[in-house]
Amino acid sequence: MISIAVLGHGVVGSGVVEILRNNAAHITHKAGRPIEVKRILDLREFPELPYADRFTKNFDDILADEDIRIVVEAMGGLHPAYDFVKACLLADKSVVTSNKELVAAKGDELLAIAKERNLNFLFEASVGGGIPILRPLDQCLAANNINEIAGILNGTTNFMLTKMFEQGMGFDEALALAQQLGYAERDPSADVEGKDACRKTCILASLAYGKHVSPDEVYTEGITAITKEDVQYAEAMGGVIKLIGRVVHTEGDRLYCMVSPMILSTDNLLAQVKDVFNAVMVRGDSVGDVVFVGRGAGKLPTASAVVADVIDEVKHITARKYLFWESGEPGRVLDHAQASAAKLVRLTAEDTAAAKAQIATAFGDVTYVTVPNAPTNELAFITPTMTEGAIDAALAAFDGVSGVKALRIYIG
Amino acid sequence: MISIAVLGHGVVGSGVVEILRNNAAHITHKAGRPIEVKRILDLREFPELPYADRFTKNFDDILADEDIRIVVEAMGGLHPAYDFVKACLLADKSVVTSNKELVAAKGDELLAIAKERNLNFLFEASVGGGIPILRPLDQCLAANNINEIAGILNGTTNFMLTKMFEQGMGFDEALALAQQLGYAERDPSADVEGKDACRKTCILASLAYGKHVSPDEVYTEGITAITKEDVQYAEAMGGVIKLIGRVVHTEGDRLYCMVSPMILSTDNLLAQVKDVFNAVMVRGDSVGDVVFVGRGAGKLPTASAVVADVIDEVKHITARKYLFWESGEPGRVLDHAQASAAKLVRLTAEDTAAAKAQIATAFGDVTYVTVPNAPTNELAFITPTMTEGAIDAALAAFDGVSGVKALRIYIG
Repeated sequence: MISIAVLGHGVVGSGVVEILRNNAAHITHKAGRPIEVKRILDLREFPELPYADRFTKNFDDILADEDIRIVVEAMGGLHPAYDFVKACLLADKSVVTSNKELVAAKGDELLAIAKERNLNFLFEASVGGGIPILRPLDQCLAANNINEIAGILNGTTNFMLTKMFEQGMGFDEALALAQQLGYAERDPSADVEGKDACRKTCILASLAYGKHVSPDEVYTEGITAITKEDVQYAEAMGGVIKLIGRVVHTEGDRLYCMVSPMILSTDNLLAQVKDVFNAVMVRGDSVGDVVFVGRGAGKLPTASAVVADVIDEVKHITARKYLFWESGEPGRVLDHAQASAAKLVRLTAEDTAAAKAQIATAFGDVTYVTVPNAPTNELAFITPTMTEGAIDAALAAFDGVSGVKALRIYIG
Repeated sequence: MISIAVLGHGVVGSGVVEILRNNAAHITHKAGRPIEVKRILDLREFPELPYADRFTKNFDDILADEDIRIVVEAMGGLHPAYDFVKACLLADKSVVTSNKELVAAKGDELLAIAKERNLNFLFEASVGGGIPILRPLDQCLAANNINEIAGILNGTTNFMLTKMFEQGMGFDEALALAQQLGYAERDPSADVEGKDACRKTCILASLAYGKHVSPDEVYTEGITAITKEDVQYAEAMGGVIKLIGRVVHTEGDRLYCMVSPMILSTDNLLAQVKDVFNAVMVRGDSVGDVVFVGRGAGKLPTASAVVADVIDEVKHITARKYLFWESGEPGRVLDHAQASAAKLVRLTAEDTAAAKAQIATAFGDVTYVTVPNAPTNELAFITPTMTEGAIDAALAAFDGVSGVKALRIYIG
């Protein structure tokens, strides 16, 4: 028998307790011994629960309990989660967390403490919810140099974009529906502004390339500016728009990291991933493209990834297992202006012939995209692949145009 | 430094050596120490290779070498692979193999020897080539009761079916192209008759449910009977045909296991997996559906999975890690006649009104499917979901019909 504690009895924390209780026989078999939830930290009380006696409001009850060898952090947010996790590690307890904000901000520090003290700090649930991704990336693809990772890392925005494409909804309508169904929070900014996807992108980049990448190093655009017109143009190109978190490994062990809406060809497997599903594509030099798809959020999917980590820690209770990255390195993440891109550019021209002449001068012989019922002075075209900086500079120099909007096209 | 041997310098074996040499620095970092290929067993000679001095034609050179702690079996086939792998385990060497025939036939015996001797016997590459699937199934989804596994497990047949759907090829033409491109062997029976997919289905079933499932227990149909007409009807239903290996867990810890062409709705993620790509869907009670997609064959993808196993064994050289199943149990795999199914049935009627009356009597108010240019006396309809045995019995009792053909419809 091994005793664990759970910090936070919210969606994920209660799901962890539920799975450990409901699948106890199966989990005992997998872990090699029973796992007991000895303590649960929450400020609320749950007198109706059969395990009501396990609750405490005092973190020190958990920290001081030497029986408790593993702590699950499911509180979310940076504080006090960071302080509690650090204290647990310093008290020689292994930790499992689903908290992407914590791992993206403090992963290197917490991993270093865990390594020094021969403990495990695991966080499979922090990226892709229930989808196995960090462990496969670290272990199963260990023989590969990873060239790129690209993923749909946020279920809320993927649900919204799916509704915008399949049911013609606008952004506001799609957001309202997502909120009504409980997929989006009342303050949806972490989702729709790309912050959540950014944190997950950081975790993937840090793990795949061995050094911490911080959210402030990653260029991040959300989906708040995506309109029905964008959807129309993407469809006219034979594509869809997905919010993509992307990490590209380039010369000198440098990285391009970005979160941005991108137009994907419907041939791309990621384009087929709809509703709240998440997907991560990993491109290895030996294995080629591998894609992992599943539910990126939700109580039981996320909790099942947490419990898998707990089982792994029980099996490795006396030995560190894996997962590590060092501190970050300034300048390692390159400015997105240096990244290669092609964009779908849309603009309103005072004089379309004059605008086309400028486009030809700047970008050569481009492909124009048209949609039914567009204003006659609207032009949309696909740039060649060049650096983002060069595209932006060329567009900024245009005369006699307004409403210039550019959407990245994912080129695999 | 750890010394390994590779049995067989064919496609996979040479790929293993290539990856270990080309990615040596990265792999040393991952494994914690360098990995040296000390010996390679092959009856052929490769004097042009920089590592020509490592070759031997005598298995005993490897077996007797106490330096060699890990042996990669990449010969394929049952004999002498089985004999060599068993001898290696009995000589206290851990083994990695990509040989699905071996694992499907002898997995339980070899795992038992490995367990008894505290060794690792790993075979990630045996299912899905380079796609991480066995390790995630065993570890990452450990908190789940697995309800079902369904996968596209054979790249050759998926390539052929893709060509039959997207380019209107017939079976023979698609096979000829697959052979021309090196995807199919001159004797394609293991692929097109479903034997290869059957072996992989057995491995998935054995691992997920803890007891050995043998190929002879799994009802197996290949794609040799799939015609252009089947393709037309599947398209008319809004679906595609995929060769699916499926394991369903049912009451009393019994299993339905089957390999068969099935019609999948194009909404199903597996339907989007084209060409030589493989995919495996795992349905857990907590996580829901998780899908793994990638290249299921090929030199480097397969070899990269083998090398990942080698790295894992190096990291666990003194301890058994995971992966185990017991011997099989007679009667655990149920007869497919008891499985639930819906089928698309096509037949030629002497009298269509009379045939429709019989159909209504047997199956109730069915949906008819029509395609352009079909013979006027051809009828196609979708049965309700019932047992396969009941469907087959009802069809066998029909009067005045001929050419009855039934295609399973995948119902998730």
